[in-house]
Amino acid sequence: MARQQKHRQPIINAAVTLFRRQGYASTGLNEIVDASNAPKGSLYYYFPEGKTSIAVAAVTEAGERVVETLEQLCSKSQTTADLIKSHARLLAGWMKKSNYRDGCPITTVLLELAPQERLISQAGRTAYNARINILCAKLKADGFSREHAKCLAQLCTSALQGSLIQARVERSGKPILTTADEMAKMLELMLSTENKGEE
Amino acid sequence: MARQQKHRQPIINAAVTLFRRQGYASTGLNEIVDASNAPKGSLYYYFPEGKTSIAVAAVTEAGERVVETLEQLCSKSQTTADLIKSHARLLAGWMKKSNYRDGCPITTVLLELAPQERLISQAGRTAYNARINILCAKLKADGFSREHAKCLAQLCTSALQGSLIQARVERSGKPILTTADEMAKMLELMLSTENKGEE
Repeated sequence: MARQQKHRQPIINAAVTLFRRQGYASTGLNEIVDASNAPKGSLYYYFPEGKTSIAVAAVTEAGERVVETLEQLCSKSQTTADLIKSHARLLAGWMKKSNYRDGCPITTVLLELAPQERLISQAGRTAYNARINILCAKLKADGFSREHAKCLAQLCTSALQGSLIQARVERSGKPILTTADEMAKMLELMLSTENKGEE
Repeated sequence: MARQQKHRQPIINAAVTLFRRQGYASTGLNEIVDASNAPKGSLYYYFPEGKTSIAVAAVTEAGERVVETLEQLCSKSQTTADLIKSHARLLAGWMKKSNYRDGCPITTVLLELAPQERLISQAGRTAYNARINILCAKLKADGFSREHAKCLAQLCTSALQGSLIQARVERSGKPILTTADEMAKMLELMLSTENKGEE
């Protein structure tokens, strides 16, 4: 069992990469196993429920990676505006490096399978909530009220997610960078007005 | 030929509906023909290049529908903030009606096939540009400078596109409505500041 355990993570990693590049439906189980270098038997051992359970694990893994990235950037960013701009630069760099094939690691799978597949939708909700919570905490630290921070965190998340789609189509990081820059400007302006009202 | 001509649009319409609900890869040609009520022969007659060319036509059709919707809403909206809120209400209503299965009609296909498929990426770019141009014109009419309007139109488009993904996962129109409301508030604030600077 210890020998087989080592293949779980490579299988999930391969699924994340393939699903984000080409989607869930066009990725075959054999392709995932080949890319992971795991023996075929281990796939059925770890994911007896089949492809859907691999998708749940992939969405969960991808969501955790986004959280990790955001937490790292958060600690280096003074404000949410800085955080969003740093995140956008990172995403635009990754996109360029992958020749605009690596978009958001969860979007395509979610659009193909949510809300029909309950467990995948649930994994998507968890990933979104974790992300929104980090932004929300940073926005509150900026000085936004709790209620306003929640709504703004939603907007920031939607905006970056949406810009990743267009970046693929345009084969350019510009939609991501422009979206983040405008969002950052708006946050700064909004904060200065909000604080002025409190003085 | 006149007899066969009548089947082209139903085939495209069926493809738009199926691709938006379940994606490109998991939609079979037979499924499209069945949903369109067209005889199977007509599919090969109109789309001799096969499934990819149906996807190009579907992305183009869906893009034109978005333009039509936006133009209609535009004529009834005083400002871009109003336009975005009306669009969001419409989208949230459609999502609810489809039990959160009908998201953006082009996103899933684009994420599955762009940038690898050149013609589909091109159709996606055309659809995005048309949408951004309408928003840009409205933002200029609001009083934003040409350059700023272009960037803001990008942000507004990204934000609504992104919110549609989360609406499916959450089975709720709330991500769309919250995103649009915050975006509208920001536009109004930004405009009042921009105009103040010019006085």
